[in-house]
Amino acid sequence: MTNKEKFMRVALKEAKIAYRNGEVPIGAVIVKDGEIISKSYNKRNKNKIATHHAEINAIEKACKVLGDWRLDGCEMYVTLEPCPMCAGAILNARISKVYFGAYEVKSGALLSNYKMLFQGSLNHKGEVEGGVLLEECKALLKDFFKSKRS
Amino acid sequence: MTNKEKFMRVALKEAKIAYRNGEVPIGAVIVKDGEIISKSYNKRNKNKIATHHAEINAIEKACKVLGDWRLDGCEMYVTLEPCPMCAGAILNARISKVYFGAYEVKSGALLSNYKMLFQGSLNHKGEVEGGVLLEECKALLKDFFKSKRS
Repeated sequence: MTNKEKFMRVALKEAKIAYRNGEVPIGAVIVKDGEIISKSYNKRNKNKIATHHAEINAIEKACKVLGDWRLDGCEMYVTLEPCPMCAGAILNARISKVYFGAYEVKSGALLSNYKMLFQGSLNHKGEVEGGVLLEECKALLKDFFKSKRS
Repeated sequence: MTNKEKFMRVALKEAKIAYRNGEVPIGAVIVKDGEIISKSYNKRNKNKIATHHAEINAIEKACKVLGDWRLDGCEMYVTLEPCPMCAGAILNARISKVYFGAYEVKSGALLSNYKMLFQGSLNHKGEVEGGVLLEECKALLKDFFKSKRS
């Protein structure tokens, strides 16, 4: 198992907590120098706060851990391609690289609908790689939405 | 004074608190049925959290006040055109209309660089009007950056 699969597996574990809470199952992990410094999952319904996506929660925790709003040198592992809000937060926090699992064709803002980290006029440029543990990440979401419909 | 100027003036007052804290002076107010339900200002440096922009803080407060992550029927007044993160949060919270003061040519995500609320593939569409109390909003930012340079 590669390192990126190892960290994505931790993000998947977080996503499963959201799943058990009846929440769209998305998990995120932030890594610095090979160590996990924060992890979280989607808490939008639980907290009734529009901004409490997995990525935002993980970024805020990481900022607290490092005592800095700048997360240069950090990597994020997230089970689904981030929405525009979360991609913007990744940009604002200057995260160096994002690995995501499933692609979000409609609203994904790193590779699919917007390409936020590659926008020339914005201050920060980061790297991004999609499709890490793709099938597992997709299956978890698919299973969740199927269970909601039935 | 029109209603939108009245609410933008409250947002400017919030922005001035950020200014006094040595923080980029941006303020935001959320209004529902003609009443202010939340207001905040940029706290990124003070809190050392990348996501603590005025708009995010105001949205989180408004969600707490209403006990709902959905802010349908709410208006936001913000002194500077929101960045991609904040525009994405406005979208996620389903805010109905945004009034902003100064335009952010480089990273503004409602009218300037991105037109986030008008993106056909995203779930929510909101209205937006820029340039409310334009000169005052611009002057406050200009003055802040001038004072930082000297």
